[in-house]
Amino acid sequence: MQQVYFDNAATTQLRSEVITAMVEVMNNNYGNASSSHSFGRSSKSLIEKTRKAVASYLNVSAGEIIFTSGGTEADNLILQSAVRDLKVTHIITSKIEHHAVLHTIEQLVKDYKLVVSYVDLKPNGKIDYLHLETLLKREAKTLVSLMHINNEIGNILNIKKVADLCKANDALFHTDAVQSVGHYNLDLQDVKVDFLAAAAHKFHGPKGVGFAFIRRNSALKPSILGGEQERGLRAGTESVHNIVGMEMALKCAYQNLEKETEYIKNLKQYFISSIEKNIPNATFNGKSGNLEKSTYTLVNVCLPIPPKKAAMLLFQLDLKGIACSKGSACQSGSNQNSHVLTEILSENDLQKPSIRFSFSIYNTKEEIDYVVGVLKAFVE
Amino acid sequence: MQQVYFDNAATTQLRSEVITAMVEVMNNNYGNASSSHSFGRSSKSLIEKTRKAVASYLNVSAGEIIFTSGGTEADNLILQSAVRDLKVTHIITSKIEHHAVLHTIEQLVKDYKLVVSYVDLKPNGKIDYLHLETLLKREAKTLVSLMHINNEIGNILNIKKVADLCKANDALFHTDAVQSVGHYNLDLQDVKVDFLAAAAHKFHGPKGVGFAFIRRNSALKPSILGGEQERGLRAGTESVHNIVGMEMALKCAYQNLEKETEYIKNLKQYFISSIEKNIPNATFNGKSGNLEKSTYTLVNVCLPIPPKKAAMLLFQLDLKGIACSKGSACQSGSNQNSHVLTEILSENDLQKPSIRFSFSIYNTKEEIDYVVGVLKAFVE
Ligand SMILES: Cc1ncc(COP(=O)(O)O)c(C=O)c1O
Ligand SMILES: Cc1ncc(COP(=O)(O)O)c(C=O)c1O
Repeated sequence: MQQVYFDNAATTQLRSEVITAMVEVMNNNYGNASSSHSFGRSSKSLIEKTRKAVASYLNVSAGEIIFTSGGTEADNLILQSAVRDLKVTHIITSKIEHHAVLHTIEQLVKDYKLVVSYVDLKPNGKIDYLHLETLLKREAKTLVSLMHINNEIGNILNIKKVADLCKANDALFHTDAVQSVGHYNLDLQDVKVDFLAAAAHKFHGPKGVGFAFIRRNSALKPSILGGEQERGLRAGTESVHNIVGMEMALKCAYQNLEKETEYIKNLKQYFISSIEKNIPNATFNGKSGNLEKSTYTLVNVCLPIPPKKAAMLLFQLDLKGIACSKGSACQSGSNQNSHVLTEILSENDLQKPSIRFSFSIYNTKEEIDYVVGVLKAFVE
Repeated sequence: MQQVYFDNAATTQLRSEVITAMVEVMNNNYGNASSSHSFGRSSKSLIEKTRKAVASYLNVSAGEIIFTSGGTEADNLILQSAVRDLKVTHIITSKIEHHAVLHTIEQLVKDYKLVVSYVDLKPNGKIDYLHLETLLKREAKTLVSLMHINNEIGNILNIKKVADLCKANDALFHTDAVQSVGHYNLDLQDVKVDFLAAAAHKFHGPKGVGFAFIRRNSALKPSILGGEQERGLRAGTESVHNIVGMEMALKCAYQNLEKETEYIKNLKQYFISSIEKNIPNATFNGKSGNLEKSTYTLVNVCLPIPPKKAAMLLFQLDLKGIACSKGSACQSGSNQNSHVLTEILSENDLQKPSIRFSFSIYNTKEEIDYVVGVLKAFVE
């Protein structure tokens, strides 16, 4: 049976170069990077070379990159320490952030003196910048946590604008960039975020590794304590092979960025027009139908299907070998509606099934023809 | 130049079977285990099969195993939640625990109403069980955190005895078993610890993965929040290849345990007698000179060398291609004395250099001859 993987926002296939690099490390560099002997130094120097390279892609310095076990841990590290150690008492975020941000904040509210403001959203999920400005006027040590690219509807936040607003109002700014690192060029000398989270498995790297960008002199402290790894900000023996694999994935991504962006954008364009041609009553959630205002990697389609039939849709797609998702991966098993779509869709549209299709360099137009064909048959 | 790796307590070489298993997963199972489609289900079922296998080696149920990014994170998860969520107000531990335990507790003391008691130690690092019993009589919700095998001096704690004492006194018991899982059989139906931490890279598995054993109905809550992975106890996309690699390492370890234990124990025995023969004034720290009362994997030798010359020792060993360690890996770069040895050695012995040599199946008697020869030449 044909298998089509259109769930690249959930996770991606590893590049073969990444696997090769990881195997090389596993075979030859098993030293503990904290050991002072030659085996240890060789691992240490691999990690530091990798850190420098990762930093260079974002135009920051190596000391500002802290390797973590993924995007979730990076979000947690930053948010927890901002409240615990930097004494942030006011967090501004939105209801359509990833759960790694939302649930972490919900827990912090229970444990600390902390007020949370949710910035207003337009019906298409766009942040209301005026409301954000108003919220920033509050007298309190404030952190803004807004994601760069929304993982469900693909909306792109103007992080430069938000960073400037935060600077002007003496607030800290954290951005979850898990869906943009490796997909977009980010120059953090230009875009003055204070903190950023990324995960390797979203850009064809290994699962279980990511990083936090923490701007110099931020005074964050670790949430995981023990040894002095990662400049004291994240204890635990480093996952050298995963870290090296992540850098290889990032290198491949940025070396081929223009060409690959073009290729994937074309796929998305083709997907959108095929849907418009074949299922004219379908709509696109958030800004995902707009090629400039949403990421080129995903589209979120609301299908004109009655509720009863809708229940069978994901099941049918799965039977046809098509991998896509309802909401984010963490929710795709559940029957609950996505918390993101719940915020931005009308009652009526929420009754219809919405599906996220997300693309990578390993996808083709033929796959799109197949998927749209299956969707069309189902709708009719 | 000859290279000898005698630092297996810091980390170990991966078994080739482990690398093969990981590559297989990286090539073929890239789905996100939280996705409901076939790619996701295949990763999910791999993880759950693995969890079952890991649980079986400890004679516990799969639901009691939570995969983490390593031993440090497992220690942190358990200790943080015990205080934050189980409302533990009294922790009993010792001054010779790993920093993943000690530093985590030091931070918890700052953030919560918590009293810490350090159990008395005999000069050889043995826990004073009578003092432990006295401490357990305190009126307070108590957690005992004592490691199974000390990573610096190899002392083995009688965890069954401690578990029984804890049960009798209504205290919880967490054991850091990072140095014993994969090296000793552990039957947790017999040894009633409540919590346990392990790390794959100590038993020829990958770095950056480990697990927490959390006995059923413990009511722990996550320290890393986000998605619903690991039954809600540890958010973040699972590192499938690392998890599978860990299980393969554990399987190999337990399948060959008797034979490999015998082999490594013989090496240690041979090392001890070679030292006794060639450097008669050397002594063994903790119980590491006693083959029954310390782990068969390591020995910690105090060498009769004057302080001035001692400074050159590790450097010289490194020049000769010999990897070993002063204290634990996390400290081996620093000039400070090990916090463990500081607790148990006399002022006089602390002036002399102490070195930990730790062995694995990949070591040989010829390597020991070489190392002891180098040590002998240096001492003379
Ligand atoms: C926007 C966003 N943030 C955070 C995460 C969490 O990353 P990870 O699961 O690698 O920890 C994800 C993906 O799962 C994501 O899409
Ligand atoms: C006894 C002990 N506990 C905890 C750890 C921490 O494990 P990891 O570095 O894998 O997080 C180690 C080793 O580093 C250890 O030896």
